[in-house]
Formats: sequence, structure tokens, C-alpha cells
Amino acid sequence: MLEKLKKEVCELNKQLVKNQLVMWTSGNVSARDPQTGLIVIKPSGVLFDELTPDKMVVVNLEGEVIEGTLKPSVDTASHLYVYKYKKDVNGIVHTHSPYATSFAVRGEPLPIYTTTSAAVFGKEIPVSDFAYIGEEEIGQQIVEKIGDSPAILLRSHGIFTVAKDALSAVKYAVVLEETAQVVHLSLLRGNIKPLPSDVIEKGFDIYKKTYGQ
Amino acid sequence: MLEKLKKEVCELNKQLVKNQLVMWTSGNVSARDPQTGLIVIKPSGVLFDELTPDKMVVVNLEGEVIEGTLKPSVDTASHLYVYKYKKDVNGIVHTHSPYATSFAVRGEPLPIYTTTSAAVFGKEIPVSDFAYIGEEEIGQQIVEKIGDSPAILLRSHGIFTVAKDALSAVKYAVVLEETAQVVHLSLLRGNIKPLPSDVIEKGFDIYKKTYGQ
Amino acid sequence: MLEKLKKEVCELNKQLVKNQLVMWTSGNVSARDPQTGLIVIKPSGVLFDELTPDKMVVVNLEGEVIEGTLKPSVDTASHLYVYKYKKDVNGIVHTHSPYATSFAVRGEPLPIYTTTSAAVFGKEIPVSDFAYIGEEEIGQQIVEKIGDSPAILLRSHGIFTVAKDALSAVKYAVVLEETAQVVHLSLLRGNIKPLPSDVIEKGFDIYKKTYGQ
Amino acid sequence: MLEKLKKEVCELNKQLVKNQLVMWTSGNVSARDPQTGLIVIKPSGVLFDELTPDKMVVVNLEGEVIEGTLKPSVDTASHLYVYKYKKDVNGIVHTHSPYATSFAVRGEPLPIYTTTSAAVFGKEIPVSDFAYIGEEEIGQQIVEKIGDSPAILLRSHGIFTVAKDALSAVKYAVVLEETAQVVHLSLLRGNIKPLPSDVIEKGFDIYKKTYGQ
Repeated sequence: MLEKLKKEVCELNKQLVKNQLVMWTSGNVSARDPQTGLIVIKPSGVLFDELTPDKMVVVNLEGEVIEGTLKPSVDTASHLYVYKYKKDVNGIVHTHSPYATSFAVRGEPLPIYTTTSAAVFGKEIPVSDFAYIGEEEIGQQIVEKIGDSPAILLRSHGIFTVAKDALSAVKYAVVLEETAQVVHLSLLRGNIKPLPSDVIEKGFDIYKKTYGQ
Repeated sequence: MLEKLKKEVCELNKQLVKNQLVMWTSGNVSARDPQTGLIVIKPSGVLFDELTPDKMVVVNLEGEVIEGTLKPSVDTASHLYVYKYKKDVNGIVHTHSPYATSFAVRGEPLPIYTTTSAAVFGKEIPVSDFAYIGEEEIGQQIVEKIGDSPAILLRSHGIFTVAKDALSAVKYAVVLEETAQVVHLSLLRGNIKPLPSDVIEKGFDIYKKTYGQ
Repeated sequence: MLEKLKKEVCELNKQLVKNQLVMWTSGNVSARDPQTGLIVIKPSGVLFDELTPDKMVVVNLEGEVIEGTLKPSVDTASHLYVYKYKKDVNGIVHTHSPYATSFAVRGEPLPIYTTTSAAVFGKEIPVSDFAYIGEEEIGQQIVEKIGDSPAILLRSHGIFTVAKDALSAVKYAVVLEETAQVVHLSLLRGNIKPLPSDVIEKGFDIYKKTYGQ
Repeated sequence: MLEKLKKEVCELNKQLVKNQLVMWTSGNVSARDPQTGLIVIKPSGVLFDELTPDKMVVVNLEGEVIEGTLKPSVDTASHLYVYKYKKDVNGIVHTHSPYATSFAVRGEPLPIYTTTSAAVFGKEIPVSDFAYIGEEEIGQQIVEKIGDSPAILLRSHGIFTVAKDALSAVKYAVVLEETAQVVHLSLLRGNIKPLPSDVIEKGFDIYKKTYGQ
């Protein structure tokens, strides 16, 4: 079942490696099938290189495994909580990408310093409170703190991005790390000010109307 | 039409990935065909891995699509403005390569600290004023501030390089990032002075006469 | 003999390269066969690309070569000392991965700042005293200072990880470098506090019960 | 002529890319054939991906091209000067690897902080005075300042390593960058002291006797 979505989620998990957002088995991509409401997610503790579409796990919103012989990601409860409370979200990505995570470790939001992050995110990336791995608590933090941002920094942990589909969520995860890196590098050489909010909003509006196919 | 140039522009866009100057869909290479005056540019929002020569978009100086089924890069107006006002420029590269962009975010020009950057650039890399993505404004900033440098830092955004052909523009983009990285690393450990201007000029002259085939 | 284990140790040595933990010929993975008590280890000074299962060296606990035409790793005495005194250890990894090694060079333990390192390591990564390469002294430092941590920073040198098998030891080496990088990046932007010890313990307990297949 | 050496020099030039020591066309490996005294070197300004053994250039000690249709590296005069005055050197590598170059840009020698750099280099890496690219001047600086170190930092430029063969020179270039990176990372978090000289010497002696096949 959901063969096309399992293939897509498998490939997007491998994109996390290709874009240097994950190492070993950490991090994961999931997607919700809009028709059935079922979620496809990476299995727990499997190396990205060894992922194949048939190893993807299909679960329902209650976390029951509908298809698949492997145990789903330890972060499944966190993903499901977000899908339950964010009806327009059909793709979620979780990584520990190092530059973005350094802001999460410091408990600092990531302000908008570049036209790219203004265009893609439209506002400062918020940071959550602390939550343990493997529980709904992370999902609660995301729902409570993410607002209408597509990305959130998870206090002392990593990042989550949410979007209308898994491909878009991966894009947000890539741009978030790119942005965090350039901000980190810039801040190391002295203090700088984020872009003014009207500039951020104008950049966000132009991009929405013009980018992509 | 322009099959050879489309193939070259496609391959050079992929070189941006290979040289770690771009992530996901950001950044682009364009080239002007000297015979027809037409410009070949990357399509908007397409992953670099999925680029093929036939997906390249051919536009004229007024921005009309002459060939291609995809929408051209959101940065097309910026490229075209430069081609219009810089007759000797037939190749342009735009990236958000992180080390060079950190200087753009700080609004600082990149001085010449190494014999390589003296040889390749011949002078400090200038930085533009702020301009929004997707408008001619970026092109205007480039034309106004780049002088006879082959590279410019785009305030709060990224970098552009211009050259007699697209291959040379990619080379400038690679060396710019290499230079920015080594300068960043050097500056983190304490203050240093750029090379004296007579040393820069002599290095630039020697290189022009001796390098390459 | 031990064909399966030689293949596994060979492949895991190549994983060190793939995960960017080693360069050129530095670093090594070894494994102990629980049946025979023999150890399979990387040969000395051979490029990772040129490793094949039949180039792996089989030694006994006394360091005698049982099979193989190449000289075993210069770190063999260190590995053997650990196997001798840690009966539950059947896999060992040694690298000079740069971020973790920077803590070893500074002679500082690596505290737990993230939920991931809490989950995987459960406590601060200890740092050994100085020991020369190629002698039992390194093994003595590991046995004396590692406690029940799966990882140790080797003063002015690099890192060792130990585990029930070589695959797990490689995982610890990867997560250690990931953790060290994010802590390094975070610390560069100002002081931060490690997670409280009760939070670390709870995170460690949850993870042990839920992660993996 | 010298088919085997041309193949080796070609492959070792590509190793510079693989070990992330070079970008685009910068950097080069050369080797001297002990029988004929002729030198094989990379052609000038050719991308590493496009190098093939038959593109390597054979020159004599006076810089005359003996075989090859391409112009030799712009650094040829520097290499030749070293070969002329260092009879035991049969392999030379030049790169702008970023971490090592940051020390060259700051005009600082690279002290020995790790057992690896003690073992491989045996003493602090010296730094030369300033010299222009493409002239004998660089060779003179190397001969004058390198002493019996296998590596030297070239003021405001990059690094050179010299060895009994090209493979060993590449190894020195890799370990130099690895060492420079870990020292850079360590220094960013506060002051540290190099290893005492007797420890460096003992580490160097042990390694010489035990490492490799």
C-alpha cells in the first residue's frame, strides 16, 4: 500500500544524507497520505544507506503499525502529534543538522539576517522548551511554539520542519541549515543586526509570488 | 537552439554543487551567446541533480522566454540587467556560498590577504547595498558597485561573479569562497592586515601573464 | 578464517571515511570474535580505499599474528589491552575526528548538552592522561578512565570508543563527533550550561528502552 | 616516457581533491624520476577531474618541457628550485588547504599539539617569508626555511610538502591539514600549550620505528 509515498519518503530520507543534514541513523522524514490519513515514516535505527521503500513503516494517527515489519522511528509519537493538530501539514522532517542545532542548544531563536531566509521563512525561527526524545511532549512543543513558521528549533536537541508535503519540509530543513551556518559564521566576527521586519515581509511576499515552477 | 551552450550552462550549474557552493535549488549560472545575444539560464526552483540541457531556459535581453518549457530563475532580471550594461560579460554566477556570504551579511568588503586572491581578483571584493531578490535592483547594484572586479558581495544575500564566459565566472565563484574561508579562519584567531596594494598589483600582473593554457 | 568478521571489520573501517571521521590512513576499527577470542584489526598504514577483507589482520590477545600477511595497526597493543581487561567489549574504534579531538587536545571532558548525547552516552565523555602512540600505555589509560562510558577522549591525540560489537563502536564514534561539533559551535557564541544530571539520566533510560529494531 | 610516474602523479593530484585539500585548479603534485632526474608535474589551470596521465608534463631541472603538449603548472619554477637544492626530495605537493593556509596567512608557524603531528612531523611546521607566485622566489624560501621538516607554510599563500616520493608528500599534506584543523578548533576555545619538546621527539622516534608496512 501507498507504494508511491513510501518511495518518495525513502528517497527524501536519503536526501537528508546528501545535503549533509544527518549522520548515521539520526533524523527522519515522514509524510501523510491526504486520502487515507495514514503516515509513512522511517524505521528506527536503520542506516540511511540501507533504507528501501519496503522498509518504510505505515502507521495511523494513533501510532498503530498498519504495514511494515520494522519498528517505526523513535520520533513517531512526535510526528503524529503534529499531524493530529496541524491539519494542513502533510510532511515533517527532523534532523540534528549542526549549525541550526547550535542555536537550539543555546536556546536562542534564529533571527532573519539574509534575503534568502526572509524569502523562505518570513520570520525568525522560534525555539521550543526542553522535551525528552520519544514522547508526545516534543510534538506538543512544536504545535505550541511553531506558529505559522515552517521550522522550529527544538531546545537542546535539533530541528523540525513542517510543510504541505515532505519535499517542501526537506527544502525547509536544507535552507534552515544553510541560513544557520551563514549566521553563525557572521556572528563569530562581531555583532550584527537582523533585517528590519518590513524588509523581511516584503522579501517573503515577492518570493511567494515569483519562485519555482 | 544553442545546444552547446545549454549543455555547458547545465554542466556548470552542476559544478556549483560539486564545489559545495550551493544547496538544494539556490544559486545559478547563466551565459550569453555572443552571436545571437540570447541568454541561457537555469530554470527556477529545480534541483541541480534534475537539471538536463533541455531544461535550460533561453531568454532575450528583455526577459522573454525564447525557448524552454520551464520558468527561468527568479534571479533572471538581475542577470539580464548586468548583461545589458556590461557588454564584455558573457557569463554570470550567483551563489550563497557560506563563507563569502558571511562577509555580505556583515556588509563588509573582502580584502586581499593571500597571493591567490591577489592573482585572481587583483583588488578587494566590493559589497553592494541591500536589494530585494527577483528584481532589477540587484542588477543595478552589481553594475553600480562591481567596478572592474569580477566578483561582488551582495549585501545580506550572497555573491555574484561576472566574466567573459560562464566557465570563468564559475572559477571566480570557487576562488571567492576559498578565499573567504581562509580569511574567515585567519580572522577568528586575531587581527591581521591585508596585503599592501603594490604587492596585490604585482601578483595580479604576474598571474595574468603566466597562468593557464 | 573469521571470513565474516574480516568482511565486517573491513566495511566498518570504510564507514569511518564515509562519515568523515578519518583521513588518509589514520584511525581503525577492530573486533573480537566471541567464540575464538581472536581479534580482527586494520593493517598499519594502508589507505582505507585499498582495504579488502583479506588484508585484515587476525591477532590473538598476546599480539601474535594468527593470519594475514600485513603488519597490524600501530594501535594494536592499545586495542588488545582493552580487550584483555574489558571482557564485554568486542568492538573498538579509534579516530582523530576533528571536533572531538579538539576537546582531547584541550584536555577537557565533553559534557552533555543535547538530548542525543544524553540518550547515547548517558554521561560526560571522560578525557585520559597523555600516552604515547603504539604502546600499551594508551590501553591502560582507556581501561583506567573510561568507566562505563562507551567513549573516551585521548589527551592530545584523538578518541576511542568501545562496545559489545564493532558496529556499535562505530555508531558511538559517529555520534561523538556529531555531538562535539554542535557543542563546539554552541560554545563559540558564548557560555552555556550542560543538561542537569537527572535530565541526562532520564533521557538515557528512555532511549535504551525505545530505540532501534 | 615515464608512463608509470605520470600515472602516479596524475592519481595523486586527484587524491588532493578527494582529501579536500584543493578546489578547482589550484594546487599540484610533482615527482622526480630518480633514474633520469626528470620531473613530472601537473599542467597549468586544468581541472583535476580532467587530468589524465598523458596530460602530465615532463620537464627537466632547467624547466624545459621534455614531453607534453600542455604548459606546466605556474608553480613549476618553485618545484624545480627545491628539486635542485634538495637531492633527497623526489616528491612535492602544493595546496591552499584552508586550515593550514590560515596559519600561513597569519604568518604563524604551526606548533605541535597532538601525538599525531609529533609522530609525523617531529617538530613545529615553519612559516616562510612572503614570495610571489610563479617565480623561483618561492623555491628559495622553501629551501631556506624548511630545514628538515617535511612541510612548510608559505606566508600569505598556502603550503608545500616535500618527501622521498610523491605519495609521502601527499600524506604530509593531508596530515598537515588535519593537524591545522584540530589546532584551529582547539585554539578558538581558549589558549593551550604545545607539547613539550622531549615528548614530541619521543613520539617521533616511536612512530618512525613502528608505523606502516
